[in-house]
Amino acid sequence: MKTAHIGLLGLGTVGSGVYKTIMAEKANIEHKEKLSLNIKKVLALEYTFDIPEEQKAAGYDEIIGDKEISIVIELIGGINPAKDFILRALSAGKTVVTANKELMARHWPELNAEAVKNNAGLYFEASVGGGIPILRTIMDSLQANSINSILGIINGTTNFILTKMTEEGGSYTDVLKEAQARGYAEANPKNDVEGFDAAYKLSILASLAFHARVPFEFIYTEGIAKIASEDILYARELGYVIKLLAIGKKNGHTIEARVHPTMIPFNHPLANVRGSFNAIFLNGSAVGDLMLYGRGAGDMPTASAVVSDVINACLLREHKYPSFKNEYEVAKELSFNNNWESEYFVRIVTEDKPGVLAAIAGIFAKYNVSIATVIQKGRGDKNVPLIFVTHKANEISIKQAIADINYIPQVIGVSNMIRVENS
Amino acid sequence: MKTAHIGLLGLGTVGSGVYKTIMAEKANIEHKEKLSLNIKKVLALEYTFDIPEEQKAAGYDEIIGDKEISIVIELIGGINPAKDFILRALSAGKTVVTANKELMARHWPELNAEAVKNNAGLYFEASVGGGIPILRTIMDSLQANSINSILGIINGTTNFILTKMTEEGGSYTDVLKEAQARGYAEANPKNDVEGFDAAYKLSILASLAFHARVPFEFIYTEGIAKIASEDILYARELGYVIKLLAIGKKNGHTIEARVHPTMIPFNHPLANVRGSFNAIFLNGSAVGDLMLYGRGAGDMPTASAVVSDVINACLLREHKYPSFKNEYEVAKELSFNNNWESEYFVRIVTEDKPGVLAAIAGIFAKYNVSIATVIQKGRGDKNVPLIFVTHKANEISIKQAIADINYIPQVIGVSNMIRVENS
Repeated sequence: MKTAHIGLLGLGTVGSGVYKTIMAEKANIEHKEKLSLNIKKVLALEYTFDIPEEQKAAGYDEIIGDKEISIVIELIGGINPAKDFILRALSAGKTVVTANKELMARHWPELNAEAVKNNAGLYFEASVGGGIPILRTIMDSLQANSINSILGIINGTTNFILTKMTEEGGSYTDVLKEAQARGYAEANPKNDVEGFDAAYKLSILASLAFHARVPFEFIYTEGIAKIASEDILYARELGYVIKLLAIGKKNGHTIEARVHPTMIPFNHPLANVRGSFNAIFLNGSAVGDLMLYGRGAGDMPTASAVVSDVINACLLREHKYPSFKNEYEVAKELSFNNNWESEYFVRIVTEDKPGVLAAIAGIFAKYNVSIATVIQKGRGDKNVPLIFVTHKANEISIKQAIADINYIPQVIGVSNMIRVENS
Repeated sequence: MKTAHIGLLGLGTVGSGVYKTIMAEKANIEHKEKLSLNIKKVLALEYTFDIPEEQKAAGYDEIIGDKEISIVIELIGGINPAKDFILRALSAGKTVVTANKELMARHWPELNAEAVKNNAGLYFEASVGGGIPILRTIMDSLQANSINSILGIINGTTNFILTKMTEEGGSYTDVLKEAQARGYAEANPKNDVEGFDAAYKLSILASLAFHARVPFEFIYTEGIAKIASEDILYARELGYVIKLLAIGKKNGHTIEARVHPTMIPFNHPLANVRGSFNAIFLNGSAVGDLMLYGRGAGDMPTASAVVSDVINACLLREHKYPSFKNEYEVAKELSFNNNWESEYFVRIVTEDKPGVLAAIAGIFAKYNVSIATVIQKGRGDKNVPLIFVTHKANEISIKQAIADINYIPQVIGVSNMIRVENS
């Protein structure tokens, strides 16, 4: 039986999960895969549980210099020193398995080039969707498809917050505090709530799905801090649920990639993805609609993806490297579109005076934005909410319309604009 | 670039889908996979669309005798002549890709032995869940998991019928007729509505998930013909939806495998799987809950799975053959359990007389069946419905209790018993 000797970098949450999973499933994996997994060396800043002394590496050189170690699992996270460690492993011809989404999103071309040069594998299933095998599904099960669209709930923290606001009420600020107290959000929640984590993942996901590099920097990113209880209540009244969606669409040679709060119909399969669960819903030319749902984070789900990568790396005839159309002449015509079409929910607060509705409607018309639904309530108060849902319109048009609407004297303000996804 | 020369058996719905998918995605697949797919010969009873004359095989011998053809795609369906064709292909060292669930469920060990003997591949992703890559996910993404349970909606016809009965009302008979008229059910619907199709698929799915052969013949199978509108209405009142579930559970060395109508909570991820869509919900030791959702049938979704198998067969270092614990000494202790635990919904019609409730409750108590909920309605009519939902009880106990309840003089009859799955 073949043995895979492994160097494990990091023994935090995910590292511990990987260590424990390999211990627990070693015999089963040997029986099923005819492959023995041996964690030969572990490099960690501290050891949160007991491991044999001989597994503890004195430094990274010990792992790099160990010719028997053919696979390095990087679970340190962040850019430094993870990037340097990975490049050194690849350069030594060792296959790397990583869960590092930020690193993959920011430095994939450089890492991939080093992997190709040394005929070493670079595997990163765990970087998107935790235990959900979405990358392998795209690469190894949907090869016969041109993928048209991806809609993903790929950040557990924001989905936990939005689910709680939807099901139990409460303001964004209060629910965020509770999420922090319960460990679902970090003390500095910026990376999650402002959408960057989802954008890193979308960069990886969309690149594989569209077979074209979708750089992180090209992704429009908007977080959930502006979502108010009122938005959630009006969404419900209109038959929608609000989710932070990572959206990728490919139409001919044009790609859209964006992360923002989105209203989706309450009977859409993604609408029922609650709490910290993740799900990726996609449409392929042959397979049609397909959704994968599961735990997007956590020690054991992420370990499931990491260990699977290790096993697959050992069983393939050759390592597969994604090749992207926009790195070749063939598709110089590929372009990224920031003026996408969408339907829009617009919540405005105005003084309750005659003529305001006409003025707003006039501005929408001026920018060719056609209105599907209007809700006007609470007449008699000084200030009243006015809710609009548009038909499909361009992003630039809606933003121009909103800017103009803010100039109407009786308009107190446009409180929110949320994109609506009915497809 | 490597070329895979293919012999295609069958040009019906799925065969046509495979042919068209390979034509449409040929260039993309060459770019992504560095593999050229060439349909060299097609064997079909009739040609529903034009293909080049030189692709038409005069008979199966022409395909078997063609040394260049390394892959045979079998899309004829049924046992004969598909089984013979597959065995001959394997015996000639050709890899076989099939969507044939009945054949795989009934003759897998024989086919697998022939494949192993000739070092030929045997791939069958399309046999379960159409375009949903559930088998590859279990085999190639969940290797680090011991799978505890599977709950599957894996028959589109019955899910279409139950969804329609739930959302629009109507009796089973009427909705079945409509499904037949619209092509969602066959003229002879027995294979689908009596649960056999789902049982074939569960046999394959559970065998891979539990790493132990789960023979089709060991699967308890009950169809949907007895589901009445009343059952659906009471389910809703209790917060449940009725689905035909394929259930596999493994607890220690004991396996349960069963197909039957099941009540699941309305907020369970499977509850929202509507119409002809399929989904498989499973729980793994590391990954936790995971669900895959998509099109379980149809020309193009099934073609997506078939073509993916063809590509993977060409890229693996060695073909993988599932090995089952119960084919080895190690796990002679494996057993199949027909006296599983479940909660139960029991709908009884009785005369509206004093003492009936006490008599029924007494019988449940006698068999150690504890009651969670009782609904009694419509007092004043001569005959009234009495609804019970039990706590966890054994299958044998509930069946004995129902037999006894039918003997109570005032009981008109036990109209239905439906298992409830809350986990």
